Amino acid sequence: MEETYRIERDSLGEVHVPAKALYGAQTQRAVENFPISGRKPYRAFIWSMGLIKRAAAEVNSALGLLDPTRAQAIVQAATEVMEGRWDDQFVVDPFQAGAGTSHNMNTNEVIANRATLILGGNLGEYRVHPNDHVNMSQSTNDTIPTAIRLGCLWRLDELLQTVDELTHALHEKAVAFDNIVKSGRTHLQDAVPVRLGQEFGAYARAVARDRERIERAAEGLRRLGIGGTATGTGLNAHPEYHPRMVARLSEISGLRLYTSDDLFESMQSMADMADFSASMRTLALTLTRIANDIRLLSSGPTTGLDEIRLPPVQPGSSIMPGKVNPVLAEMLNMAMYHIIGLDTAVALASQAGQLELNVMMPIIAHDLFEMMHVMIGAVRAFTRKCVVGIQANREKAEGWLARNPILVTALNPLIGYMAGAALVKEAMSRNLTIQEVALEKAQKGELHHKDTGLPLSEEDIRAVFRDLRRLTEGGLVGSSGGGG
Amino acid sequence: MEETYRIERDSLGEVHVPAKALYGAQTQRAVENFPISGRKPYRAFIWSMGLIKRAAAEVNSALGLLDPTRAQAIVQAATEVMEGRWDDQFVVDPFQAGAGTSHNMNTNEVIANRATLILGGNLGEYRVHPNDHVNMSQSTNDTIPTAIRLGCLWRLDELLQTVDELTHALHEKAVAFDNIVKSGRTHLQDAVPVRLGQEFGAYARAVARDRERIERAAEGLRRLGIGGTATGTGLNAHPEYHPRMVARLSEISGLRLYTSDDLFESMQSMADMADFSASMRTLALTLTRIANDIRLLSSGPTTGLDEIRLPPVQPGSSIMPGKVNPVLAEMLNMAMYHIIGLDTAVALASQAGQLELNVMMPIIAHDLFEMMHVMIGAVRAFTRKCVVGIQANREKAEGWLARNPILVTALNPLIGYMAGAALVKEAMSRNLTIQEVALEKAQKGELHHKDTGLPLSEEDIRAVFRDLRRLTEGGLVGSSGGGG
Amino acid sequence: MEETYRIERDSLGEVHVPAKALYGAQTQRAVENFPISGRKPYRAFIWSMGLIKRAAAEVNSALGLLDPTRAQAIVQAATEVMEGRWDDQFVVDPFQAGAGTSHNMNTNEVIANRATLILGGNLGEYRVHPNDHVNMSQSTNDTIPTAIRLGCLWRLDELLQTVDELTHALHEKAVAFDNIVKSGRTHLQDAVPVRLGQEFGAYARAVARDRERIERAAEGLRRLGIGGTATGTGLNAHPEYHPRMVARLSEISGLRLYTSDDLFESMQSMADMADFSASMRTLALTLTRIANDIRLLSSGPTTGLDEIRLPPVQPGSSIMPGKVNPVLAEMLNMAMYHIIGLDTAVALASQAGQLELNVMMPIIAHDLFEMMHVMIGAVRAFTRKCVVGIQANREKAEGWLARNPILVTALNPLIGYMAGAALVKEAMSRNLTIQEVALEKAQKGELHHKDTGLPLSEEDIRAVFRDLRRLTEGGLVGSSGGGG
Amino acid sequence: MEETYRIERDSLGEVHVPAKALYGAQTQRAVENFPISGRKPYRAFIWSMGLIKRAAAEVNSALGLLDPTRAQAIVQAATEVMEGRWDDQFVVDPFQAGAGTSHNMNTNEVIANRATLILGGNLGEYRVHPNDHVNMSQSTNDTIPTAIRLGCLWRLDELLQTVDELTHALHEKAVAFDNIVKSGRTHLQDAVPVRLGQEFGAYARAVARDRERIERAAEGLRRLGIGGTATGTGLNAHPEYHPRMVARLSEISGLRLYTSDDLFESMQSMADMADFSASMRTLALTLTRIANDIRLLSSGPTTGLDEIRLPPVQPGSSIMPGKVNPVLAEMLNMAMYHIIGLDTAVALASQAGQLELNVMMPIIAHDLFEMMHVMIGAVRAFTRKCVVGIQANREKAEGWLARNPILVTALNPLIGYMAGAALVKEAMSRNLTIQEVALEKAQKGELHHKDTGLPLSEEDIRAVFRDLRRLTEGGLVGSSGGGG
Repeated sequence: MEETYRIERDSLGEVHVPAKALYGAQTQRAVENFPISGRKPYRAFIWSMGLIKRAAAEVNSALGLLDPTRAQAIVQAATEVMEGRWDDQFVVDPFQAGAGTSHNMNTNEVIANRATLILGGNLGEYRVHPNDHVNMSQSTNDTIPTAIRLGCLWRLDELLQTVDELTHALHEKAVAFDNIVKSGRTHLQDAVPVRLGQEFGAYARAVARDRERIERAAEGLRRLGIGGTATGTGLNAHPEYHPRMVARLSEISGLRLYTSDDLFESMQSMADMADFSASMRTLALTLTRIANDIRLLSSGPTTGLDEIRLPPVQPGSSIMPGKVNPVLAEMLNMAMYHIIGLDTAVALASQAGQLELNVMMPIIAHDLFEMMHVMIGAVRAFTRKCVVGIQANREKAEGWLARNPILVTALNPLIGYMAGAALVKEAMSRNLTIQEVALEKAQKGELHHKDTGLPLSEEDIRAVFRDLRRLTEGGLVGSSGGGG
Repeated sequence: MEETYRIERDSLGEVHVPAKALYGAQTQRAVENFPISGRKPYRAFIWSMGLIKRAAAEVNSALGLLDPTRAQAIVQAATEVMEGRWDDQFVVDPFQAGAGTSHNMNTNEVIANRATLILGGNLGEYRVHPNDHVNMSQSTNDTIPTAIRLGCLWRLDELLQTVDELTHALHEKAVAFDNIVKSGRTHLQDAVPVRLGQEFGAYARAVARDRERIERAAEGLRRLGIGGTATGTGLNAHPEYHPRMVARLSEISGLRLYTSDDLFESMQSMADMADFSASMRTLALTLTRIANDIRLLSSGPTTGLDEIRLPPVQPGSSIMPGKVNPVLAEMLNMAMYHIIGLDTAVALASQAGQLELNVMMPIIAHDLFEMMHVMIGAVRAFTRKCVVGIQANREKAEGWLARNPILVTALNPLIGYMAGAALVKEAMSRNLTIQEVALEKAQKGELHHKDTGLPLSEEDIRAVFRDLRRLTEGGLVGSSGGGG
Repeated sequence: MEETYRIERDSLGEVHVPAKALYGAQTQRAVENFPISGRKPYRAFIWSMGLIKRAAAEVNSALGLLDPTRAQAIVQAATEVMEGRWDDQFVVDPFQAGAGTSHNMNTNEVIANRATLILGGNLGEYRVHPNDHVNMSQSTNDTIPTAIRLGCLWRLDELLQTVDELTHALHEKAVAFDNIVKSGRTHLQDAVPVRLGQEFGAYARAVARDRERIERAAEGLRRLGIGGTATGTGLNAHPEYHPRMVARLSEISGLRLYTSDDLFESMQSMADMADFSASMRTLALTLTRIANDIRLLSSGPTTGLDEIRLPPVQPGSSIMPGKVNPVLAEMLNMAMYHIIGLDTAVALASQAGQLELNVMMPIIAHDLFEMMHVMIGAVRAFTRKCVVGIQANREKAEGWLARNPILVTALNPLIGYMAGAALVKEAMSRNLTIQEVALEKAQKGELHHKDTGLPLSEEDIRAVFRDLRRLTEGGLVGSSGGGG
Repeated sequence: MEETYRIERDSLGEVHVPAKALYGAQTQRAVENFPISGRKPYRAFIWSMGLIKRAAAEVNSALGLLDPTRAQAIVQAATEVMEGRWDDQFVVDPFQAGAGTSHNMNTNEVIANRATLILGGNLGEYRVHPNDHVNMSQSTNDTIPTAIRLGCLWRLDELLQTVDELTHALHEKAVAFDNIVKSGRTHLQDAVPVRLGQEFGAYARAVARDRERIERAAEGLRRLGIGGTATGTGLNAHPEYHPRMVARLSEISGLRLYTSDDLFESMQSMADMADFSASMRTLALTLTRIANDIRLLSSGPTTGLDEIRLPPVQPGSSIMPGKVNPVLAEMLNMAMYHIIGLDTAVALASQAGQLELNVMMPIIAHDLFEMMHVMIGAVRAFTRKCVVGIQANREKAEGWLARNPILVTALNPLIGYMAGAALVKEAMSRNLTIQEVALEKAQKGELHHKDTGLPLSEEDIRAVFRDLRRLTEGGLVGSSGGGG
């Protein structure tokens, strides 16, 4: 089967473009120039460029710069681009011309050809011209940074809702596990009691705070430099173009957006993007920690802590029924390492601006969109397939605590610090629990109240160990000698 | 000369402590255990731990847990620590016991011994005991994260003022250079005109935004987990201890501080610190970019751009009077790389928390304080010794622009796009400027108004080139075909 | 149109697998469990797993553990996998179960089903069983690290050849530009002369050294832990399995491979991978620098250095014929930032091993393969579409040098340091070149030989400036006072 | 008390230098210009610059360029600098003039003044001149990169020996723990048995490999660019200067050193340094992993794994005798995070070279020396105070294993897979060990040999469990169904 081409021309000569392609010569050149990764732009980047082209056509038309017929055709074509109808026409590698010229031209050409078709023309005829009409009042240099901002904001709600869902799931577990008293561990060493619910509550809180940080960082993305054109001066754009564009972009997208107070800064600085990236990094750091904890708490079952059980999502060992690899937590770890790595790339690209422009925008766009995409996918799967199904293993949790000599803390108010220390010594040398030794001694009448001197009964001891929860509720002054 | 020692004892046996040291056995063990870097804690960390010990003595005393005499002695000793009087007694390497036990004990011992002296006792006598009195109601695990937060806030104003000073200096330059019209450069290639003032204005704006980010990130540090004690449950601390501590810390320090809504999260999560670190990273990325630009703009003088001149602060070449190495911008670059590296270390340490505690806090503390310290020093020196003295080189800046064929943009409204393109072609082939060719043609009567067809005079041409500034002010619709 | 399924079962119950899929239940579960990034494994990872399965079938058969019929079917199926015939059957997201269980099972199931078909069976019938036969003597835990090593080595030659091609192209330019004498620039400031060829020669040398480092680091990948099975002890594998596997893998692939001297270390340590990643990072750092230099040297053309001209690969500005954005160098910059970011991810994942296993292997695999893939694509395109076409702009290069007062260095041997310094002063104040002033003075008879005192002729001066090259050849002792 | 000054002059005017300082005007200016971090150069940097100055004086003298009297005075002064006698005279902040001009001039001035004193002159009199004599044939631009290389090589042996000591200590533990059979853990989940000695053996091997990588990377540092002078061309240096310098540097220092095959590359490329830094990063990644494992294996004692016991180096909890915080492992973690962070800084600085020079060398020097210094201190302390004292807790290790149902693997050869699976099921449901259930069944005569069908005795069962070690020695084909 033979592929057919049409011939387009530019200042460098003829270009063979696939006959049915909506894109044109410049896109084709980019395809040939940049056979780098084989990857394609993220939807967020296609959508946001379509949005800008649509808004520009509307604003240019309203300002009398673009005839209504062409404007209407561009609006229709751009809307189709936004809706994903022509995703397969966005064919330029993310590793491409600096500043994203190729992605801008890909967008211009697809919309120009599609609009030409809408107006009854043929592909390559360009009744609507990619530069003169679709790109009117614009430059790669102001559309690309604007598109990065819009693309991130487009996925922001999804990201925040996904994180909220995790927070909610962790909070549900905090409630469910509120009464599981267990051994605290600091330095991975025995420490005073905590409740499993407190641990999950703190996870929920940590994730919620990181979510706030992401939302806050995204505020910096809402200020748009569209209208700065080639160098930030706004040459070639109507004085009303910038504010009108921001208003129109906001109306179409439903996003809260602001005009820029410095079109130069909006063009040359990628700090808003680096900051947004960093806010995802902070979440990634938190989720790395939580995933590590969950893998540790579910370790075993027979040779680890086994305080929680994760829902099985794939067969573990055929020989060991209880064995469930923590696959979703492990996936989360890996996704977060990847995200932290991409944040490094975004930071490096962000510092590389020179004078009026940062030409590294395409990799900033690509890696930011990948960070968001992987974060959404990873957090959602982790929440739905792991967190919501976590079960506490009360028996194990309480069993660990019972062996922890720090429990003498609970007896100290009755028997005093010195007698407590003796209990610990005996318990550890005989490999018994504090409670066991205390009951034995109480039975023999060898345990006395530190103040009254009266012997303590076994029931006195049992009562103490029945209410270990109060050790986790704060405010028990001077009840322990632990710490350091 | 013979060093003399006193003997202190702990559960591991005897320790030889320098006879006059205010610190004691645990500090001495730490000195011996951790001969790692030879470095000492930053003042911010000494100050903040002193502050906590002072506030704790006051609160414990007010709650009736600590006798007023000891409390008063602790307050005096801790205040002296805060004032820097005993800095030489803080001798433990930053690379030390996890969670910062050694730094906490160093603080406890110095204050205990100093308070003992105040009460008429001898060193090592511990009338005021490091654990029982100085560390009362506390644990390493809640004091160290609180101290990191307080220490950062302590230097925050200085950091922000230093950044403000840079913003102001850049803004002053933006005003001073407002009328220097020069060639824009995108992709480092010739682009449409901008004003030098616009460039510096955008630098000022970028720095100001990063400053806002730092201030915003610092908000997360104001929430204190003091009172969580060993695991976040607050065991051993009075129910009123946490809110009273926060209030007292605020009163003493003058810092705005908040109670924690989750003492677990406040203890186990270092995300607030990672976020604060990231906000400094964003500033570092911006300053890297600005330093690079300033080195590029001042390159030459004869073989580079030479659009600005930096104040000489040290002799350049003896043979080339005009040569000034951009040493302060270079220093800024290096300082920012170091800061970005330390941010990586802080991020790594932040993800390494396990269960109730993040034992990596000492390196978080050390590297955060170093980031702030180097940032303050570097930005201040760069501002005062470089930015404030920057001079524009109008002649060079305008000279570059004159040679830039994009200037035909200014003639296009008069002569039209086609005639303009012809001018460019001729100018480039003859290695002349657009103005030169245009004047020549006008003189010969070969240049006509695009609409009226009337010949243009040399004065018509000169008038256009006298007002290039309007090309930098936006709103000249359709004046150029440049861009991409 | 209705999709049809077949039902497979595992210990968790029924699974609906697409009717025609070669993969089975475990793969299908992974597809459903890990809807994270939408990405698929790199070919290198499919190939290397196919290779291991083929070699294992051969070795197990030779050891009498696997019947020849099944072994032969597995060999055929695995060979088809290696050849890329079933790439579309590898459907598990790179962000998946820890250690890569899902990728291992995907491979096992595809080969088992394909082998079953070869033996005349039906999909899902498993005459050749994924675990019992295809995975025989293996574990995810030893196959995946082995596959990462093999996959990297598989693309190594292509990577090295690509880098060699760049080295060669840079070297060709070094030869071509050997006689372009230009101004050196240190601190971006005027410095003593160099030749453009020397600059390109040093680039070639730097790239060649980085290539050696990559080759050297790859040596660490040649030691294979296959046969360690689940924990490194080799339980369930025949004593001769490990050495036979290494030999067979080497024979089939043609790769030089070694047995492991510590199967535990080979399983639990990812340091070889981190080191290989770091060697690519070093190349990325060098290429970042070179791309930056090339963009700087080609800056302008009228407002920058313009010492070299890059081949146009896409239309620049329609209005400025000479304008060529350095798109391939910019692409290279972006690709290198991405690679450096991925190296961070690989490093993070590498430190996260725990006890017998590093479960983060899937992201190490994915990001390493992406680094290699992007490096190959980026370097190849940069070489072929940019470097080979670079032209020197001798006129500009020499023009800059002529204006550089450091050229007085060339006259110093004739006129002495003091007279030279006076020339510089006059040249700079009158905005003339050293040569111009010297010729003027020689014409007037005002320039004398420092030793003989005889007046110097204009020709004497011209002779000096005709041979500036010798200033770039070293060994001119004491000819200049420059430096610092 | 009044500080006294002497006045020195340079082209910018008068400078007040402390009366007794060996340094002079340029150093003093640098002190005033760079009040950044308050830190001073590492000894390695002082030593290596002293070495270069000494060798240069000798070579210049031998070439007849420097009079023997001055040469001899310089040699003596430089030797004193190398020996550390004048460390307090090196007062310039590491964050300083690009390329390290300030450090070079600090060295030149200290040696010039000291040599002047040796020759009977006064401070500031400069009978030996900093530039003309001490810096003869040199430039900052070739001395600083050479000094970085030499400084790293100077500490290399110490670093390698420290790492060797750790390898040796780990190996000793591998031998000592060779017979401790324990449960393997993969994904932190129960896995087939391993020996504690195998784990420590793999740690030793991993560290040894990283050590080889460091040594190998250091090879790149042995090629010296000294003699490239200001731009790499060697202008102002005698043709024999470069090879003579390398030979002399080698003789004085005892280091193996090579001449450069490209003085340009040696000057402009920092890739050798980035590669050396990366080799330390790889070790840091390995040590992070090992420190994490050791903290995990020593977790508890009652609520964690407690398979090993670390030597106590400071009092743990007064209430819990067995509690030992793993402080040295924690310190190691922190040191490694810091080192990884500094590696990021070195990488960033390395990519920032421009044209003939990388002006970021001072931070590369500082951070590389800090990496080495912290690595040496941290590894040495970890080895001596932690690793050598690690004790195995055989009882706990074997206890975990006994509870691990995977032990049925050991019985399978006797009873077959099906009967084994039934045992596991019963053991887990009754919370007994495999051995307990098997003994019980054997006692009742319910356990039969899979092949003979004869009943198995209790002694048969006990014999199997007495020799679990063979499960860790490989080559038991088909003994288990574990894995995945």
